[in-house]
Amino acid sequence: MCAQYCISFADVEKAHVNIRDFIHLTPVLTSSILNQVTGRNIFFKCELFQKTGSFKIRGALNAIRGLISATSEEKPKAVVTHSSGNHGQALSYAAKLEGIPAYIVVPQTAPNCKKLAIQAYGASIVYSGSSDESRENVTKRVVEETEGTMVHPSQEPAVIAGQGTIAMEVLSQLPLVDALVVPVGGGGMVAGIAITVKALRPSVKVYAAEPLNADDCYQSKLKGELTPNPQPPDTIADGVKSSIGLNTWPIIRDLVDDVFTVTEDEIKYATQLVWERMKLLIEPTAGVGVAAVLSQHFQTVSAEVKNICIVLSGGNVDLTSLTWVRQAEKQAPHSAV
Amino acid sequence: MCAQYCISFADVEKAHVNIRDFIHLTPVLTSSILNQVTGRNIFFKCELFQKTGSFKIRGALNAIRGLISATSEEKPKAVVTHSSGNHGQALSYAAKLEGIPAYIVVPQTAPNCKKLAIQAYGASIVYSGSSDESRENVTKRVVEETEGTMVHPSQEPAVIAGQGTIAMEVLSQLPLVDALVVPVGGGGMVAGIAITVKALRPSVKVYAAEPLNADDCYQSKLKGELTPNPQPPDTIADGVKSSIGLNTWPIIRDLVDDVFTVTEDEIKYATQLVWERMKLLIEPTAGVGVAAVLSQHFQTVSAEVKNICIVLSGGNVDLTSLTWVRQAEKQAPHSAV
Repeated sequence: MCAQYCISFADVEKAHVNIRDFIHLTPVLTSSILNQVTGRNIFFKCELFQKTGSFKIRGALNAIRGLISATSEEKPKAVVTHSSGNHGQALSYAAKLEGIPAYIVVPQTAPNCKKLAIQAYGASIVYSGSSDESRENVTKRVVEETEGTMVHPSQEPAVIAGQGTIAMEVLSQLPLVDALVVPVGGGGMVAGIAITVKALRPSVKVYAAEPLNADDCYQSKLKGELTPNPQPPDTIADGVKSSIGLNTWPIIRDLVDDVFTVTEDEIKYATQLVWERMKLLIEPTAGVGVAAVLSQHFQTVSAEVKNICIVLSGGNVDLTSLTWVRQAEKQAPHSAV
Repeated sequence: MCAQYCISFADVEKAHVNIRDFIHLTPVLTSSILNQVTGRNIFFKCELFQKTGSFKIRGALNAIRGLISATSEEKPKAVVTHSSGNHGQALSYAAKLEGIPAYIVVPQTAPNCKKLAIQAYGASIVYSGSSDESRENVTKRVVEETEGTMVHPSQEPAVIAGQGTIAMEVLSQLPLVDALVVPVGGGGMVAGIAITVKALRPSVKVYAAEPLNADDCYQSKLKGELTPNPQPPDTIADGVKSSIGLNTWPIIRDLVDDVFTVTEDEIKYATQLVWERMKLLIEPTAGVGVAAVLSQHFQTVSAEVKNICIVLSGGNVDLTSLTWVRQAEKQAPHSAV
């Protein structure tokens, strides 16, 4: 089943059975103001309301439940990961559910609220630098020292399959959807979603949305080969600083229809727009998808792609760090949702 | 029908027919963390998702539609109101829908985002001081000058009836609800809700929630007579600075079961809790109801009052003014909704 890619749709279906009783079936909301602005029907899959405040619980829980059934004689000694925050929180929560110690390697620069949340779930934090290399070295050491099992935030097949369950829900909640818009960092979510959408309803488009400052996915698609970010990217969308990897790249290469890049200003504008008009406290990473749909480039998408679902990936905002919030301009009315 | 009070439940039913096609049937959400903390089942009626970002559109629209059918020969020349913001936005929006000029008297101190939103709906702003007296004097002058019709934010019967439609929805969405918790300023919302609840399901409790710094409703109930705030109150909950009045007082006196007062710190804590855990961008006024349910005093409420619906009244926050947001303490996990 996994000839071509690291997972198949059957793995997503299994993940769904594994996790559905432990997560929220998150709602889909709409916003008349966003419909007006874009001239399309925009739907918002609210993973900010998900357990642990982001979609990451889907993949983390699927991975841990897989480990436990694989090693039915005894539980794994520990689970380990590196994460800019949301996967770390999710793995901590999932590990606690199953009574396994969790060690989370986190860059010093991660938002404080995310570190505190990881600790609140009872996991241990180990700090690294912010480069991919530093993260991986520290993680390797922790795995050796704890005899733990690494659960990669985006390249672990069970994680990718878990994230794919978002698309199973969306296709059932929105039978007439024409496209899904998904923020891409390591690419676990967009890969899981692409596998699912193209298995169940191949005509539905899957679009990735990415900060221009971390555009490895765009560059990879352009060049036709995996092209990681040359240096640690500087973006407010802290959840998508990672590069896509060996497992997600082939899926993205073949099954993602297009990649839209957005500037930091566009991300901030879109994030604040969702706060002010929809009253949803998304994190800037979730704003990347909204910014993509608002971008000039998106206007080149055929008008037939009418019903568009943006995945609002999470809501773990460090409220004390919102120094960029701008005085609201005099714009369209605050008519909300 | 109005022997005892300025409205009867029949007026609320009429309001429902008047406005239901123009407003959102707002969702009811839950939060496992709030259930854990309180030991009850807490439900959140999400009026922050309502048109114009607060429940106020219900009363404003009902009042304007009533004016138009009453003066079927010609439209009223203008509508006028004084408002800390949300009623002003709502009246502006409703007036624009019906093609009537609107003049909104706003205290200089109102949040900037509210003023901008009023202007964005095309209404004219007239500034007043922040005392009830100053507001009323300026409003009187504007009514005379424009030959407009005053639509009082809380004492206008059509407004009270419009706000009562919230309770019609809640009783239908939550058949097992035991109590509603409602922020009280001028008292239009809690009065409309009390009329409705006591007509349809008298055993259901109606609790008012009020800042300690603006506790005229509490004081009035305590003394058994209408006791306005002696001076303009100083509270972060800017939507409930007004005092209850001649029309809402008799209803509150007879039909509201209890009043819970909360401190400014409790309001801030509750507001931030809803942001961080539920990812809902409520305004501090909506946090007053949440703070009431989290308060020590609320623990004296019988355990039989199990299913409690808090009305999250609005989400019009001036994000640039959030200087009070505190570093998140190390508390329970961020497990959201």
